[in-house]
Amino acid sequence: MPLVRIDLARGKPPAFRKQVGEIIYHAMRETINVPENDKFQIITEHAADEINVASSYLGNSYTQEILLIQITLNTGRTVEMKQALFKRIADDLHDELEVRREDVVINLVEVAKENWSFGGGVAQYAT
Amino acid sequence: MPLVRIDLARGKPPAFRKQVGEIIYHAMRETINVPENDKFQIITEHAADEINVASSYLGNSYTQEILLIQITLNTGRTVEMKQALFKRIADDLHDELEVRREDVVINLVEVAKENWSFGGGVAQYAT
Amino acid sequence: MPLVRIDLARGKPPAFRKQVGEIIYHAMRETINVPENDKFQIITEHAADEINVASSYLGNSYTQEILLIQITLNTGRTVEMKQALFKRIADDLHDELEVRREDVVINLVEVAKENWSFGGGVAQYAT
Repeated sequence: MPLVRIDLARGKPPAFRKQVGEIIYHAMRETINVPENDKFQIITEHAADEINVASSYLGNSYTQEILLIQITLNTGRTVEMKQALFKRIADDLHDELEVRREDVVINLVEVAKENWSFGGGVAQYAT
Repeated sequence: MPLVRIDLARGKPPAFRKQVGEIIYHAMRETINVPENDKFQIITEHAADEINVASSYLGNSYTQEILLIQITLNTGRTVEMKQALFKRIADDLHDELEVRREDVVINLVEVAKENWSFGGGVAQYAT
Repeated sequence: MPLVRIDLARGKPPAFRKQVGEIIYHAMRETINVPENDKFQIITEHAADEINVASSYLGNSYTQEILLIQITLNTGRTVEMKQALFKRIADDLHDELEVRREDVVINLVEVAKENWSFGGGVAQYAT
């Protein structure tokens, strides 16, 4: 159910981009109870000038390597679960891909459970 | 008012992509009362490795032809209307463009009616 | 905190795209109390056929120069603040970049304040 959009600058190999997605998927599995195979991710590369961010915000500095991650998911996760998710994504991207933790920016958009169709024209979570 | 994002892998002709948009527009017109000409659609093509999905989820299998459709629209549609919309989109994409029904993945994001400006700096639905 | 997606057709120089982002950032600063350096913007260029809009809606006519702007931000802005934001963005894009006001289409998506991590795996607004 989470639909994940990952936006980053051009220049990373496909294996890097794929691994970013996998890390986010596994972090969601382990911190916010996302079911197995519930993986719907859209990765978009951009020219450097198409990612327009300040050099720093709230004490975090950003580089050209910034990852902008927007996750649409069902409502119902607690603040603690969201915090665990953020930490896990940043930690694992850092540990496995050497991404700077400060370059990991995440936003969640919450929707109702009947707002999904995973194929076949059916709202699988509506019942 | 619906803002529709359609993400798919590269390789389809422009006429196919345009028709996907038109089918979604007409489905919205006929199932969830979207006004005429209320059509704001962004189609983005991706390298195959930029769409990262599992091979199947909840009994639906996915191919490289998967269409990821995210629709931002006003709150207020019933579950039944959403179900009708999902079915209609999948049916029509299948019937008119031979898209596999299982390759049609849809997500709705609902917002308040004052959250739109359709030009001119005015919130046309706010009043 | 606002995450801004700007989608437009190919053909504008990088300086134009950058300036669109800056204008939106300054409009948010001055109408809806966005903090300094809170600027997270993703600009995506599209082939002309990938932006699928009607020729007009609610009295606004659209050209190939249309700008589709989707802003994800925290809940809590009043209708009056949203109206001021829309007006300011359209006015400034017109005055500074000669964008037609009718070609400025904006959508807001509102989320809870704990739905953001601005780096470091921390939910900076959760406390």
